[in-house]
Parts: sequence; structure tokens; C-alpha cells
Amino acid sequence: MNKRLLLTGLAFALGAGVTLTAYSQVKPEIMVKQRQAAMTLQGKYFGPLAGMAQGKIPYSAETVALNSALLDALSRMPWDGFAPASKDATVKTAALPAIWSEPAKFKEAQDNFQNAVQALVKVSRSGDEAAQKAAIGGVGKACGGCHQNFREKQ
Amino acid sequence: MNKRLLLTGLAFALGAGVTLTAYSQVKPEIMVKQRQAAMTLQGKYFGPLAGMAQGKIPYSAETVALNSALLDALSRMPWDGFAPASKDATVKTAALPAIWSEPAKFKEAQDNFQNAVQALVKVSRSGDEAAQKAAIGGVGKACGGCHQNFREKQ
Repeated sequence: MNKRLLLTGLAFALGAGVTLTAYSQVKPEIMVKQRQAAMTLQGKYFGPLAGMAQGKIPYSAETVALNSALLDALSRMPWDGFAPASKDATVKTAALPAIWSEPAKFKEAQDNFQNAVQALVKVSRSGDEAAQKAAIGGVGKACGGCHQNFREKQ
Repeated sequence: MNKRLLLTGLAFALGAGVTLTAYSQVKPEIMVKQRQAAMTLQGKYFGPLAGMAQGKIPYSAETVALNSALLDALSRMPWDGFAPASKDATVKTAALPAIWSEPAKFKEAQDNFQNAVQALVKVSRSGDEAAQKAAIGGVGKACGGCHQNFREKQ
């Protein structure tokens, strides 16, 4: 399966400190669905990078660049789905109560992940394979660091 | 629910013609899950924009800029999940057989959508509210155009 993507126009830059406001009450079940969707897609685009860093699949500079760019966006998406109201959701979720009982620690784990993705984005177009693989390892570690404390064991 | 997002470092630009190669055989059920996740998140970030364009919620230039940037990434994500192998998935899907019997028309509908999102991205930081609302309408039309022929009626 090959897919040719035209990525012209993908560039965008937003200043720091944008505030995202929810304009309508989102149902707890929808919050869970949306945050799980973001995790699913993080897996889709991080999986091949992890495979490259571990030497399981061939290195591709293009895939590193594309997937890092998409992870940049995806790394921002799950967090508002963990709003306290989402605790009332009547759907299956692996989210642990520590998310809400230790919000500062959870926020720190989110920040670690987002910082690790930013570090990857920074080297993703550098052509420096070793630096990219190190940054991929950093993202993997940050995923695991959050899952360790805040997600039910799979 | 408020969420402050630090968007420094979000800027990225990729050249045209990047090829995305799948390195491992992805299970049909995973393909469906991933493409549905992309649609779920398109809904999350397009919903508020549609509400603004329809005058149902207050206009926010910041939300237009942020959500357009995230839709830029999301608009690239569902399509490889409709690979022919995904037809064998044993999970519920609203995908219609026309996706695979009329691939050229399906590709055209995808392109219409991606072009509409690019048109939105282009005006999303312009401060031109009328142009943004028109572009949001264009995206909504492109969503519907594809759903009309390729998604089971909801």
C-alpha cells in the first residue's frame, strides 16, 4: 500500500498561548471517544517510527518527517478529553483514577510527552538519522511514562 | 472547560510528494479503527467551526486558527485506512461498497475535502472573518459530498 500525499500548504505556525474554549457541553462518552481516537492515531504514526528506532523496519527519512509532523498535531489532542466531567462516562476506558486525583502529575506527564514530540519535530527534517532515532526513543519513553501511572495495564 | 495550549514549535513544512509506505501488514480491523478515529477527530475540531459559520456559537479567531491547523493534519489521515484489504474487516463500519467500486470518484471526493481544508488553512490566520466562514462552509460541503456517496446514511 502506497499513498502519495501532497503536503504543500501544510506549514502553519501559531503563537504561544492560544486558548481553546469548548462552546458546548460535550458528553462524557464523546470525550472518551475523542481522546481514545487521538491515542489510536498516535499509535498509527508513532508505531513505524518506533520500529525504525528499534531496527525492526528500514529507516525512511520521509516517513520520519511526515509522521513527526502529524504527531505534532496529534500530541495536542487527547488532553481536554480527560476533563473531570469525562469521569462519568459509561463506556469502557483504561483511564486510571490517578488522572483526576493527581492532576499535577498527570499534567507533567502530558508535558513530558509534548516536549518529547517537539524535540522529535525539531530533528525530523535534519537528515540526522541518529538524532532522530534518539528523539523517537524519547517519545516512546514519554508514552510509557504516562501509561505507567495513568493507564490500566493492558 | 478551558485548555491552554502552547503552540510554539507547531510550525512545520514538508515538500510536495512525500510517499507514505506501510512497513507492516496492518489488520483490516485496525485500518477501520484508525480511519474512524480520524473522522471522530475531524468532527471534534470542525464542529465548533461549523457552529461559528452558522452563527450558533460566538466567533473566535483563535479557535479558527487552532482548529484549522489541526484539521490540516487530520485531513491527511483517513485515506490509507480505506485500502482494499480493509473490506475484510469484521467490525461495524458505515463505509459503502462504492469506495472500492468507484475508486476514482472516491479519490476525487477526498481531494475536494483536502482542497477545502487547505483553502480554510490559507485564510485561518488572516483575520478575515467573512472569508473564514465561507471557507468553513466549503469544508462542510466537502464533508457532505463524500458522505453522500460513500457513507451509509446515519
